[in-house]
Order: sequence, then C-alpha cells, then structure tokens
Amino acid sequence: MLDSILEQVREGTLDIDDAKERLKTYKDLGFAKLDFHREERQGYPEVVFGEGKTVYQIIEIIKVLKARHRRILATRISPEKAAAIQKEVENLVYNETARTLFWKNAEEQTILYQGYVAVVSAGTSDLRVAEEAAVTVEAMGCEAVRICDVGVAGIHRLLDNLEIIRNATVSVVVAGMEGALPSAVGGLVSHPVIAVPTSVGYGANFGGLSALLSMINSCASGISVVNIDNGFGGGYNAALIHRMANEKRGEQQ
Amino acid sequence: MLDSILEQVREGTLDIDDAKERLKTYKDLGFAKLDFHREERQGYPEVVFGEGKTVYQIIEIIKVLKARHRRILATRISPEKAAAIQKEVENLVYNETARTLFWKNAEEQTILYQGYVAVVSAGTSDLRVAEEAAVTVEAMGCEAVRICDVGVAGIHRLLDNLEIIRNATVSVVVAGMEGALPSAVGGLVSHPVIAVPTSVGYGANFGGLSALLSMINSCASGISVVNIDNGFGGGYNAALIHRMANEKRGEQQ
Amino acid sequence: MLDSILEQVREGTLDIDDAKERLKTYKDLGFAKLDFHREERQGYPEVVFGEGKTVYQIIEIIKVLKARHRRILATRISPEKAAAIQKEVENLVYNETARTLFWKNAEEQTILYQGYVAVVSAGTSDLRVAEEAAVTVEAMGCEAVRICDVGVAGIHRLLDNLEIIRNATVSVVVAGMEGALPSAVGGLVSHPVIAVPTSVGYGANFGGLSALLSMINSCASGISVVNIDNGFGGGYNAALIHRMANEKRGEQQ
Amino acid sequence: MLDSILEQVREGTLDIDDAKERLKTYKDLGFAKLDFHREERQGYPEVVFGEGKTVYQIIEIIKVLKARHRRILATRISPEKAAAIQKEVENLVYNETARTLFWKNAEEQTILYQGYVAVVSAGTSDLRVAEEAAVTVEAMGCEAVRICDVGVAGIHRLLDNLEIIRNATVSVVVAGMEGALPSAVGGLVSHPVIAVPTSVGYGANFGGLSALLSMINSCASGISVVNIDNGFGGGYNAALIHRMANEKRGEQQ
Amino acid sequence: MLDSILEQVREGTLDIDDAKERLKTYKDLGFAKLDFHREERQGYPEVVFGEGKTVYQIIEIIKVLKARHRRILATRISPEKAAAIQKEVENLVYNETARTLFWKNAEEQTILYQGYVAVVSAGTSDLRVAEEAAVTVEAMGCEAVRICDVGVAGIHRLLDNLEIIRNATVSVVVAGMEGALPSAVGGLVSHPVIAVPTSVGYGANFGGLSALLSMINSCASGISVVNIDNGFGGGYNAALIHRMANEKRGEQQ
Amino acid sequence: MLDSILEQVREGTLDIDDAKERLKTYKDLGFAKLDFHREERQGYPEVVFGEGKTVYQIIEIIKVLKARHRRILATRISPEKAAAIQKEVENLVYNETARTLFWKNAEEQTILYQGYVAVVSAGTSDLRVAEEAAVTVEAMGCEAVRICDVGVAGIHRLLDNLEIIRNATVSVVVAGMEGALPSAVGGLVSHPVIAVPTSVGYGANFGGLSALLSMINSCASGISVVNIDNGFGGGYNAALIHRMANEKRGEQQ
Amino acid sequence: MLDSILEQVREGTLDIDDAKERLKTYKDLGFAKLDFHREERQGYPEVVFGEGKTVYQIIEIIKVLKARHRRILATRISPEKAAAIQKEVENLVYNETARTLFWKNAEEQTILYQGYVAVVSAGTSDLRVAEEAAVTVEAMGCEAVRICDVGVAGIHRLLDNLEIIRNATVSVVVAGMEGALPSAVGGLVSHPVIAVPTSVGYGANFGGLSALLSMINSCASGISVVNIDNGFGGGYNAALIHRMANEKRGEQQ
Amino acid sequence: MLDSILEQVREGTLDIDDAKERLKTYKDLGFAKLDFHREERQGYPEVVFGEGKTVYQIIEIIKVLKARHRRILATRISPEKAAAIQKEVENLVYNETARTLFWKNAEEQTILYQGYVAVVSAGTSDLRVAEEAAVTVEAMGCEAVRICDVGVAGIHRLLDNLEIIRNATVSVVVAGMEGALPSAVGGLVSHPVIAVPTSVGYGANFGGLSALLSMINSCASGISVVNIDNGFGGGYNAALIHRMANEKRGEQQ
Repeated sequence: MLDSILEQVREGTLDIDDAKERLKTYKDLGFAKLDFHREERQGYPEVVFGEGKTVYQIIEIIKVLKARHRRILATRISPEKAAAIQKEVENLVYNETARTLFWKNAEEQTILYQGYVAVVSAGTSDLRVAEEAAVTVEAMGCEAVRICDVGVAGIHRLLDNLEIIRNATVSVVVAGMEGALPSAVGGLVSHPVIAVPTSVGYGANFGGLSALLSMINSCASGISVVNIDNGFGGGYNAALIHRMANEKRGEQQ
Repeated sequence: MLDSILEQVREGTLDIDDAKERLKTYKDLGFAKLDFHREERQGYPEVVFGEGKTVYQIIEIIKVLKARHRRILATRISPEKAAAIQKEVENLVYNETARTLFWKNAEEQTILYQGYVAVVSAGTSDLRVAEEAAVTVEAMGCEAVRICDVGVAGIHRLLDNLEIIRNATVSVVVAGMEGALPSAVGGLVSHPVIAVPTSVGYGANFGGLSALLSMINSCASGISVVNIDNGFGGGYNAALIHRMANEKRGEQQ
Repeated sequence: MLDSILEQVREGTLDIDDAKERLKTYKDLGFAKLDFHREERQGYPEVVFGEGKTVYQIIEIIKVLKARHRRILATRISPEKAAAIQKEVENLVYNETARTLFWKNAEEQTILYQGYVAVVSAGTSDLRVAEEAAVTVEAMGCEAVRICDVGVAGIHRLLDNLEIIRNATVSVVVAGMEGALPSAVGGLVSHPVIAVPTSVGYGANFGGLSALLSMINSCASGISVVNIDNGFGGGYNAALIHRMANEKRGEQQ
Repeated sequence: MLDSILEQVREGTLDIDDAKERLKTYKDLGFAKLDFHREERQGYPEVVFGEGKTVYQIIEIIKVLKARHRRILATRISPEKAAAIQKEVENLVYNETARTLFWKNAEEQTILYQGYVAVVSAGTSDLRVAEEAAVTVEAMGCEAVRICDVGVAGIHRLLDNLEIIRNATVSVVVAGMEGALPSAVGGLVSHPVIAVPTSVGYGANFGGLSALLSMINSCASGISVVNIDNGFGGGYNAALIHRMANEKRGEQQ
Repeated sequence: MLDSILEQVREGTLDIDDAKERLKTYKDLGFAKLDFHREERQGYPEVVFGEGKTVYQIIEIIKVLKARHRRILATRISPEKAAAIQKEVENLVYNETARTLFWKNAEEQTILYQGYVAVVSAGTSDLRVAEEAAVTVEAMGCEAVRICDVGVAGIHRLLDNLEIIRNATVSVVVAGMEGALPSAVGGLVSHPVIAVPTSVGYGANFGGLSALLSMINSCASGISVVNIDNGFGGGYNAALIHRMANEKRGEQQ
Repeated sequence: MLDSILEQVREGTLDIDDAKERLKTYKDLGFAKLDFHREERQGYPEVVFGEGKTVYQIIEIIKVLKARHRRILATRISPEKAAAIQKEVENLVYNETARTLFWKNAEEQTILYQGYVAVVSAGTSDLRVAEEAAVTVEAMGCEAVRICDVGVAGIHRLLDNLEIIRNATVSVVVAGMEGALPSAVGGLVSHPVIAVPTSVGYGANFGGLSALLSMINSCASGISVVNIDNGFGGGYNAALIHRMANEKRGEQQ
Repeated sequence: MLDSILEQVREGTLDIDDAKERLKTYKDLGFAKLDFHREERQGYPEVVFGEGKTVYQIIEIIKVLKARHRRILATRISPEKAAAIQKEVENLVYNETARTLFWKNAEEQTILYQGYVAVVSAGTSDLRVAEEAAVTVEAMGCEAVRICDVGVAGIHRLLDNLEIIRNATVSVVVAGMEGALPSAVGGLVSHPVIAVPTSVGYGANFGGLSALLSMINSCASGISVVNIDNGFGGGYNAALIHRMANEKRGEQQ
Repeated sequence: MLDSILEQVREGTLDIDDAKERLKTYKDLGFAKLDFHREERQGYPEVVFGEGKTVYQIIEIIKVLKARHRRILATRISPEKAAAIQKEVENLVYNETARTLFWKNAEEQTILYQGYVAVVSAGTSDLRVAEEAAVTVEAMGCEAVRICDVGVAGIHRLLDNLEIIRNATVSVVVAGMEGALPSAVGGLVSHPVIAVPTSVGYGANFGGLSALLSMINSCASGISVVNIDNGFGGGYNAALIHRMANEKRGEQQ
C-alpha cells in the first residue's frame, strides 16, 4: 500500500494532503475510535466489548458498525442492557448464557466453513464461559459443537465423547478449579487446544489463578492459553485456526 | 495414663517427684530432643529428617534410637552423607532415588499388613518424590506398588494400570507441573487419595505452587494434599490409613 | 467388566451397539450429566454442590437422584434456596449452620459403622465449616463427635478434650487465622488428621491463605489438607477412612 | 479402532487376550514409558525433554525411538550432554542457541509444507527461546522465518518487518521484560499469534511473571500463551496450525 | 530559614517561644492537620484526597484552604458528594469523568506555562484515570492535550498521533490490561514518560498488577511509574517537570 | 498448681474426679467456650472480638463476663450492633471511631499506671485503627496520648511532636499506604515501637500488604509488627509493656 | 536540647557556626556514616550488620566504635570473616551458631538487669536464629534462657518447660515451617511475645512466608512479629522491654 | 520528515527505492539491531545493557557505536568482562561500584548543564545501585551530587543534608528494605523524585518487592518509580528532566 501511495504521489495523481488523509482509518465517536483499518474479510464480525460501556455508547457503536460491516458481536452484555439495546437496534439476537448480542446482515450465510470446532467444558458452572466461546466461533462463520460436563474427575465421560472431540479441527477447552481438562484433552487429540481457565471455584482458587497456572504448566503439547473467563478469546483463536484449516474444503466443493 | 498416675500417687505407690519424672518423655542431645512420648507401636519407624543436620548429629540420633526402636527411617540424606553414616552405623540400607536410609531390627518382619498402597507418579522427574513415599510406606510395614509415568497427558497409560490402582487400599499420587493426576485418579477410584505436588517443572511452575494449587482445588472427592515434594508425608499418611484398614485382614488369617 | 463385555460379544450374546451402549453411564439433564458410573455402595450419598446452581436445577437433580439412590447430600445451600427446594421435595433436612440439605430413604439406617470421627474446630467462626464436615461424615453413615472452640491460643482447652479426640478413628481439624490447630492435634494423636483451613480472619489472612500455608507446612506427621472452607472435603475424606478402618468391627459383631 | 477390535473379537479373528494386548501401546524402559499410542504421522518428530534426564537415559530413549520414528527432537540439552550423546548416536545435529538435538531419517525431506511460520523476538536475550521455537517448527517439517530484536521500545523496527510477518500463516512471538510485543504484533496481523513469555529481565520481572501476565491480559484478539521460556511449546503449536492451514497448498502442486 | 531564626534569636529580635512558634506550620482541624509549611508558589493548588473523607470534612478543609490559597483541587469525589459540597462552597467546578472538584481565585490565570503535557490513554475504560491526570495538569497551570484510545493493539492509531505526542514536554501514559502503551510511547519520544497503570481488565489482571508489572519492567528508557489508578500522581509529576522545563519560555516572552 | 493438685490427691483431700474437674476452666455457652483459665489480674479487660458474632451472642457473652470480671472490651462492633447491645446491657460506652464497646465496674479506677503510651498515626484514614489501639490501651488501665496525621510525607509535623512521643514508655505507630512511619519513629525514639499496618490505600496497596511488608522490613531497631488493621493487637502489646515498665512508679508513690 | 542551644545562642555563649556544628552527630567513613546521635546509654551495644560489608569495612567500623562505646555487636559474620577480623581487633568473641562477634570493655559488667528473657525455639534448624536472638539479649546486658526444640507437634515438651517460660519478663519465640509456636506460647503466658519467623522449611514454605503469615495472623493476644530470620530484631525488642520492666529491681537492691 | 520525503518523491529528487531505504535506521549485527533512528542529540550517550551479552558481542557493539556517537555507556559489566573489553577498546573508563564502562570522544565536554541532580541513598548496600544512577546522570552530561547513608531510621542525617537536596533540580532516591526514603524526601522537596527500589534486604523483602510496593504506594506527591535495582533508569529519567529544566541557564550565560 505504501508503494502504491508513493507511486501515485510521484505521478501526481494523489496530492500530499490526500496521501496523509489516507492514513485516517477510523471514525472518532469521542468516547472511542472505531477502527476501519483492516479490510473487511468475509465472515469476520466486528466485536464490541460491552463491559464498562453504557447502553448509549453500545448503541452508537453498533449503529456505526452496521453501516460498514455484515456481522457484529457484542460480549459481556447483561440482560438489562441487552433489552435496552434491542429496543433501539433491530435484529439483534441475545444469548443469555453467553451474555452476547449478535447481528448479521440478513443475506449473510451463517456457517461458511466445513468441519467444526469442539467447545469442551468441565463443569456446569463453566457453561457461561464455554457458551461465550461457542457463540464467538459461530459469529466467525464456523460451526461449534458443545461437549459439556466432562471434567477429569469423571474421565469416562470425557472418553465417551472422545471421537467427536478428535474429529474437530481445533478444541476450546474450558475449566475452572484445578483446570486439568486441557491436559487430558491435549493428550488425547492431535489438533491444537485453546485452553480457557475460568474463575469458577472457591478457597485457594484465587479467582481462577489455580486453573490458569495449571493450564500454562500443562505437560501436554499443543495447548495454549487465554485469560481467565475469556471465552471470547478462546473462541476467536479457535475460529481463526479453523478458517485457515478449512478454506480448502469450502473451496473444493 | 493420667488416671493411672493419679491413682498410683494416691495409693502412695508413686511419689510426686516420680510422677513428675514420668512426664520427662524425651532424651535431650543438646541440639535436639528425642521424643519417647508415644508408646512404640509395632512397625512404626522413628523418623529422622536429615536436611540441615550434620553427619555427626544424624549418627548420634540414630544410635540413641536404635537402643529403643526396631525401625528407623532417615530422609533427605545425600549420597555423601549416607556413605559417611553407613561407616559408623551397621545395617543401614540406602535408597539412592529416595535418598533415604533405613534400618530395622534383624528379627523384624518387613511387611506386616495385607493388601498394598499404590504409589502413582506422573513423570520421570517425579520419581524421586514417589520413591520417598514408597520407601516410607514400606518402612511402616506396608507393601507399596509403584505405578510410574502415567501422567494425564497420556491418559491411556493411566487407564491401563487402573485395575492395580483400584485394588489398593489407598493411593499416593505424585505429580509436578499442572498436578492434574490426582484429580484423574480420584475420579476413577473410591478409596482415599493422598496427593503430593512436586517442584518439577519450569516457568510459571513457581517451585511447585502450580501443582499444589491444582491439587488443593481438585474437583474430585476423596483427595487430600501434603506439602510440595513431601514424599515422606504422602507415604506416612497412606500407611496410617492402610494399617487401620487392613488390621482385620491380618488378624483374620 | 471389560472382560465380561468382550466375552459376551464373542459369544454373540451382546451385539456391538449394545456393547457401546453399556458405556453410557449417566443421565444427561442438559445443564449437567448425572453420573451412574460407580455401583452404588451402601451408605454413600450422592452429593450436589449447590453453589452457582439455581433452585430449579437443584430440584431436578435431586428428583433424578432419589429414584436411584438412598442418600443425597446437597451443600452450599442458602436458607432461601433451602426453603424453596423443601417445598418441592419431601423429607429434606436442612442444617442452617452447615448450609446443607440431606435426604435419606426412610428405611436406611443412619449410622452404619462403629467408632467415630472427631470434628475439631478452633474458633466460633469456624463452626460453619466444621458443621459441613460433621454433616458430611454423618451422611456417609458414620458418627461425628464435635469438639469446638479449642484453638491453640488456649491450649488447655484442647488438652481437656484430648482423650475424646484420641479415641476417634480419624480427626477433621478446622481452623482459620494462623491455622495452627492441626499441628497441635497432629502431635497429640496417632491417627490420620484431615486439616481444613478456613477463610476466617482479617488483614494478612488473605482469604484463608495463611491457614492453608500453615497446614501444608505442618511439621507434624499424619496431616493432609483440603481446600479453604472445604468442610465437605474434610468430612468426606475422614469418612472414607473411617469406613475402611471400621468395617471389621461392624462385621465382627 | 474400538469398533474394529470388537468386530474381530466377534468374528473370532482376534481372541480376548490379543484384544487386551492391543492396548499395550508403549515400551517400558523402567525409568520411562515410551508412548506408541498415536499412529505416526508424516513429519511429526518424537520429542524428548532433556532437562533432568541423564545422558544414559537420553541415549536409551533415542535408540528406541530411532527404530520406530523418522524424526526425533531433544530439547534442553546442554553442550556437554550433547557432545556425550553425539558420540553414541550418529547423525544428531546440535543447535547451540536453542540447545536442541535433532535427528531425521536420511531420506526424509526437511520442509513438507508451503508457506512459513514467523518467529518474532523482542531482544537479544530472548534469542535462546526463539531459536528453540524455530527449531521445533522446522522439526515439524515447516519453514521458520526469524525476525529478531524488534521489541516495542523501537516500534519502527517492527514496522519495517511487518510485511514478512503478515505473510506468515502464524506467528510465534517471544518477549521477556514487559512482554508487550505480542500485543503489538497481534494488532498488526490477522493470523493466530502464539505468545511465549521469557524469564529475561530483572527486578520486578519475577522470573517471567511480568511478561506472562502481560500476554495473558493482552487486549489484542488472536493471541494465546504458553509457559515461560517454553519455546518448544510455542513452536509446536504454531506448526500444528501451519500444517493444517497449508496442506492444501502442498497438495495442490 | 534556620540561620535566619538563629540570627534573630541572637539579636534578641525573636524570643525563644516565638522561635518555637515559628515551627507551627499547620492548622489543626481535629481530624486533619492542614499544612502551611511550604511557601505558596504561583499556580500550585492545594490538594484534597476525597476518598474516605465525609462531605463535612471536605467542606471544612476547603473553607480553610480558600483563605490562604488561590487554587484547590479535590480528587476522588463522587457525584453525590460533589453536589453536596457545591451547595456549601461557591465556584467549584466538578469534572464527572475525573471525579474532581476544582476551585481557583477569579483573578488567577488558568494556563501559566507555554507548551503542553500529552495525556495518552489506551482504551475507553482508562478515560477516568486519564482525565484525573489531565485535570491535575490543568490545576497546576499547565495545558493538557488528551490523546485517547490509542492502545498498542491498534498501533497505527498511536502512530497517527505521534507528532502531537512528540511535541509535548512530557507524556502521561495511562493503560490497563497488559499496560504496554508506555513502552511503545517511550520508544517513540525523547521526553520523560510518566506511566499510570489502571485496574481496567479482568481475569489475571489482578486489580492492575499486570499493568503495573509491565510498566515497571519496561525496556524503554525514560519511563517511571506511579500507583495503579493514580491519575493525580501521573498528572502532578508531569506538571512538575513541565513547569521547570517551560519557565524559560514563559519568561522570555 | 500441678504440684498442689498432686499433693492434695496424695493427701486424700482431693479425690481424682475433683482433680480432673479442676481442669475445667471455662464456661461453655454452646457457641463459645469462655475461658476462666487465667487468674484475673487487676485492670485486664476480658475481650470480645465482635466480628462474625450475632448481637445475641455478644450479649450472652458480656452477661457471663460481667459476673466475673471488672472490665470488658468488645471490638469490631458496628453502630447498629452497638445500639442493640446497649439496650440490653447497661453502662456500655460506645466509641464510634474505634467501633468498640467498653464496660467497667463503677468502682474501678480508670488509669492505673503512671506515664503513657503514644498512639501515633499517619493519615486521617488511619484514625479508625489508631483509635481502636488507644481505646484498648485505656481499657488496660493505661493512659494513651494520640498524635495524628504525622505521616512521613510531612516529616516536620512528626518532628514537632517528637518530644511527646519520646517521653512515652512505648509507641503504637499506625500507618497505611507505604507504611513508612514506624521506621521514622523507630529511628527517633529509644523505646519499643509496635507497628500496625492498615489497609488504607488503593492500587498496589493490596489490602495493606504494602504497609505490612514495609514495617516487617524496617531497618530501624526496636520495631515489631501486628496484623493489618489490628489496632487492638497494637494497643494490647503496648499496654502489656507499659504496665510492666511502670509498676515501679505506681508503687513507689 | 534545642532549647539549650537556643538559650546559649541568645546568651552569646554559643555562636551560630558552633550551634550548627552541634548538629554534626556522626562520623563519615566514606562508605558509611557512624551515628553518634543518641547519647550512649548504659549497656546498649553499637550494632554492625555484617552482611554485604567487607572485612576491611567491618574492621574500620569496629575500630571507630571502640573509641566511643563500651559494647559492640556485629551480626551476620561468617566464620571466615570472623577469623580475619579477630586477627585485627582484640577481645572479640565469636559465636559460631549465631554468627555474631561481640566485644565489651573489660570493666563492663555482663548482666545488668534482674530476671531473664526466654528464647524459645521450635526445631533444631531454628537454632541459628534463636541463638542470634539470645546473643543480642545478652549484648544488651540481659540474661537469656534458651528453651529449644519445643515445637507444637510435640506440645508436651512445651508444657514441660512452661514454668521457666512463664517466669520470664518477655519471650522471643522462633519457629519456621507452619510457625505455630508463638500462638501456643502466647496462649500460655501473660507477658509480651516477640515472634521470629524463620526460613526453615521446604515446599510451600516460600522462604519463611508461611511462618510469617501464621504469626501475623495469630489469634493469641500479646504477640508481635519481626522479619523472617531476624533473630537480632527479636532479641533487641525483647531486651528493650526487659530493661524497662526490670530497672526497678536492679535499682531497688 | 514524512512530509519532506513525500515532497522529494513528488519533485522527483528522491526515487521510491531510496525513499524506502531512508527507513532503514539501524545496523544489523546478526545478534542485535543497532538503532540509528533518533538523530543524535548533544550529550546523549548510546547505552549498552551488558547483562547476558558476551564480551565479543559487547566489543562489536561498542566498535560500531564509536563510529557514530560521541558518548557510550555500558551497564552491568563485571570486572572480568570490563578488563577483557578494555583490552580491545581504548579509552573506556570502568567504575567498579556502578559496574559501568564509559567512553566519550576526547573533545566532548563532560558537564553540559548548570545545576545538579541529587542522588540520595539509604544504606551502604544501596551504593551499587546509586552509583549506577550517578554515573548515568554524568554520562548524560549532567552533574550528580551523591548523598549516602541517610535512611529514614536516622532521619537527622537526612535533615542535615536537606539543603543540598532541596537545591537540586531533581532527586534520584535509592533504597532497599522498607523503601521509605523517597516518601521522606518527597515530603521535604518540591522538585520531582525518581524512586529506585533495591533488592537489598532479607526475609520478607522478596527480592525488592517490599521496597517497590512502598514506593509505588507513597503518600508524597511528585514521586515516580523505576524497576528494582534499575539505577540506570533512575539516572536516565533524572537527567532527561534536568536537561530540559536547565537548558535555559546554560544558554543564558
């Protein structure tokens, strides 16, 4: 792009002020700069992190994004905020477990890639984070298959679901407490595992630190870790990989 | 015992000074007080924690203990110290992996109880701690069955050894890094599991903290935890339980 | 079991789909998988961890469990939740200190084993956790003897209760703040001690960390530790041991 | 595989003992169990973690592996150990910066996939870890392009190398101290970033904790993290993704 | 001053009690001692830290200060407190984002120095702290230029604002989460950078610890750090420097 | 005492059951054991730690204590609890800053010892803890002189009060944030200093940890430290020392 | 003193330069400033902290101090350093356990006060720190009575020594690992207890942190804490108190 | 600069490849990229962080730098390395306390600015870090005045040096242990204070963490903090400020 701009400047088809203007790649809302820097790629949602933003701010952001994007995902939205936002913006789908709002252009296809991402979670209380991961995977145009309540303390339940996990392109593995599930999954599959520690637990859990340290110290290969309770991050990483790995299949058909 | 002393005092069969003398239950070596408080029970070794003690001190302690006890276990003894001690005290058996010295009265039977304790360890580097646990179990007159290198990253290796673990009275489970093995074992057996975190690992392992937190936060029931690298503590707890649980069998035959 | 299944498959008495079906060992409620994997053993309750579950979920789980089990214990149930659940499910007993609900089949005998577990606690504020331990011991069919308010700062109160503690099969010792009680008890008894740190305290207590570190570092042998405030874990471990150690007595009579 | 074994058992072509034998998927060297569980896949090396293993043990392991595998990678090998091992095993290549030994079958092609993995590092002292990542990527049959000394304190050096980083399939980003580089890279590329914190630094660096926390808290999407100094883990994850994403290209030509 | 007092004492122009009285340099309000020790310097506000003080206390303090000072800044004032205080004291300006109250003598000029301080912040949620810094800079008689939402994950937005940052005398750089922005800015400017970590983030952010460690470990020169969320401290340090560096310009014109 | 009991047992003037009864030195209220072990000493209050106790429990305890003691101090009592308790028990004095209730027998003299304890505090927000210390000192029959708001950031205010601090028998020094005041005081006086860290502060204060570490690491001699916010502990230690050091004076006159 | 100087200045008996000179209260050795600020008080040693100082520096300091003081205590002196220093300075007594050098003027009486300080330690490995405390007590002119190896895991050994501890003026209680001994002692005595945590232990001991937290959180009254391994601090605090409490006795006879 | 390049490109005086070449602002030595990005400013040294670099690497870097710069400062150079480097490069001055090597062009003036920076340190053991700060200040062309051994435990020594500290433009304050000195200095001066925590101390000092937290939590205004033991950073920040604040004076004369 730099080459091209320099070229045009030399040829006189672009004057210097315009050349500088070309660098302005975002819209300034006052309270936030919305970024238009990356060219939009098919099926990538724009993401709004809702925590700490007011209903008004979220609505303004979504309105601006709708004009330029085909998919929008807002995370960390409480039910009350969601209701208020849905009144102002049409066609937003709220997922109460994941606490997300999703919008897509009506013509946009939901699933764009073959295969699926496995979203594996250890306990009932980890569902909230796992669902945020799954919704993110789907917002990226990929299929998410959910496998719940398969923590290491009941290893047979994990083994019963092994085939479906093994057939995924990539797994997002969500666990709190001792956070041992990614190690167990990592030892059983040969694809990448994105580990998501959760703050679920009590006592010496220290807000998810125990699970985070477990996962970072995993002796299984092929595991990498995102922040505590960061279901979005887990899902986003998984979908990035899934899309690259499965473009072939999508195109071959 | 208090009743009995008071009784004798009243009956005049024990005078007051003698009564007080009866409370002196240890031998003072200057640098340490050796405790004779507990009545010796069959098969209980006296234990010497070797770390931070000089060869001279260890020899003195062992000599005093030999006069009153039938089993002596010294832990955390380096090969050099062991060689020096063995020169001065006969019939001490050194275990290089566990770094322990053991002595027992020649007539003393080795194994006193039926059944066995399973000593399960995750990786090659955990062997040192696991062996200290196993040697302790044996010093207590119990049989120890070792199952090594069955960490959660290769869960099938654990499953292959499941039957032998399940048939134990109690398991000592030793693991470093993410410390997930006790959770996996705890979910597969119905007997008590003593978890021993090790300092094996690197990076965010923080000297065994990651494994300790994992084990303390385990979602499996029936797990309790001892200090990092405390193989002796793991073995001692297991043998305490094993002896209580298996006296019946021993006596019935 | 694997042998038996393979045998039947070879003999043609079990077809392959049925063999696979045999591995389905839990009921899926959508939000949780209830585990039927272990054969029910006499006097073992099914346990429901109430924290983070809705009243509706707890009721559903209890209903399913009642059909297959003879004892059910639910922990971490607030008084409000308890009242709501008791309206829907009959014969549930609520313990306000322990915050537990307990149900057992009317014909089921309460105490199944001889002897008792000592549940020892340091201060008034540790009672909540100690009671959870005691209720768990009882739910497992064992007798629990409570010894309260015997912290190390008044060591004579502990000594006054020494005999009753010594005569137990196993002790659960509950303490917050400096968490020194398990060390003191551990030095006075020769049976296993399950130490339960509590989050009771203030200042540099760091939510129970001070008590946890104390107990993990105890210089007394025979002590193992469970999570902060994990009264259930303490009681469960103790009862596991008690049952093994006292089956003999139960059967001999 | 289970289906197939059951099938054969029913048909009588496999007897029960043989069926059970099929589960024995590792070779037991006494001090370690070598795992043959996974079918070998083209270009996957067997990996030996050298830290804490003796020269003798490493040699034994490599000898066994050479009989069954076409690529072997040993990490954390000091120059002294490397020299001793190379005397006993032929054709091992030692990388002094990465401290790795690599062996491959003479006929085996080095690079199997199109495209490349970018291995980006912040400072001169991070080179050791970055090189371990790069060597691992290459041992997996992928090309690694190294971009060194582009830490955020000199952001223009990063920008100068932006195009080569953007064209990679996946980036491994290695940084110590404040660990800010993955955030900067993550904001500039649209492919997955594997962040590797290093223990490089001093003062409040706390052995790499500062870099680890930075990376885990990164506000850029598409970043996941492995353990401190875990160059192998970073490279392994990247290669896993690269292979999936680039099989198409390899096959298309 | 000591010289002068001793001189006067010798000359008899100051008696001993008066000499001692001269040391009384504060007014005692009972709940606080207001300090008159420093000679007032032009444009330095007296600062009241509002957190933990009652409305009544703040009003009393401001009243006393108004009699002796020309500028007063109160920080950490909630909107409710602000409203109550404004009822009792005239001409206080409340900044809702920064949560500050500011008063100055009507004749006092607002900006006293040439040039400006750049207040750079990473994300929308860091605005609160950044605004406290900016308001503090202004209360010190210096101009503050705000550059918001230029976190390292969108490095081009930072680069677009580079010229305005470079032309400042000193920068206050405010960031939460991974706290990488000061390193990036520090590498791009040659003036001092005051880094302010914020508690913005979640998971392993630990109340701002991740950002604090990042900034303290920054590999860029010229960066120093104040407490988490201490916008006041950041602004105060910057203004101290700015005033010294720009007195010349102010006087030369 | 043991001698005396044994003597009486031998002489038959005390039978065995009575001897054992003599060990019962507390009253059991069910929820707490009130300790009568120590002989009451003149001017020592019985202390009730109010946190976590119900109004009912506190009233019951105070009622029992009033029958046997001449001074009672209850700490950590909220205004609401205080009001409720005062309705049921007469003559309780509530200190709102210290959050203490104090009762003494009407004939009991308030101050029993010559000299005084200095209670020195750094900032307005530390007053709560300092007042708890001062009230405790007074409840022990000693005089407390309060010196407030003399933190190290205004060292001249400390120096102005130096003489009154130096003339005390012992100082209690209370500070939050960087907790530097005890070091400064410790370097200026030659009597013992009891340092009390407070949780006052924000950001990297971590609930008082910064002040605690500062004080524990003080390079001044003669400083010892109690728990964060433990005003009672600070006052109690100081009064213990003051009483010993000043008995002479009281008696000599 | 200020009064007196001002007085003389007014009277003309002291000129201003001399008045200022009077403030020079230390000797500057270049690498250290030796402090002559405090008037020497009978029996107070000057203390040299040896760690990190060269043999040459220590010799220089001791030589200067000998000219003005009657007692000198140097701590943290290795045997090698001690030997080298003793060659240059006469009459220095080295204590190998405490690692201290002590010198006193030949005419100076050793013990100046009645009564004694109890120095109580938990285990053999804590002796080093306890001895530093005891030597410090003696260097202050007070008698130290040592009670060793009475850790809480053998509470009867503590009880056997209870009378001698109770009769002390103040106790220094030294313990590592779980650090429970001060709580036990504090509950048994009514005098002040100075608690000294040691770094003795392993695993989750974290260099003495476990013992420090235990002691800071002690539920016994009358306990205050000094730094980990700070035997000097413990002894110094105890002697300060002992001297004040026992001056009476010394003078009365 | 961008403007100018674009201008030249349009005018045809600069072709596109040259324009791109202009962005190459560093020399690549293979193991490091030497940065020529900033225009050299009078009196700014190029800095080499010696830790972790080999003698060979340091020599290579210095040689390259000498060709383009007039001042070079290398930090963290051991005496052995220094000797080896000095053999190869002429005119390097080694400071043994600071462990720095300094070179400047023979014609270059040493001190370029009026006034001075105060480098204040608390104890003898902090000298190493303070000296690194002072040497850095001097390498930047500023005068450094050293004030040593004025820790808060002897506050009068600080007060005696107050005038010289107050007259500085900026202070670097270096302290270990409780790190209280910056607070005390900050309360006494009205210029900026750069606080440098050191790792000096023992016990609960945790490698300098106690001093770092103290300084970050300082209640004095005008203090900012650099990394533990980062004398260079402290000096560099101070000199940056000093140069800006004193250019006027230099120019006016």
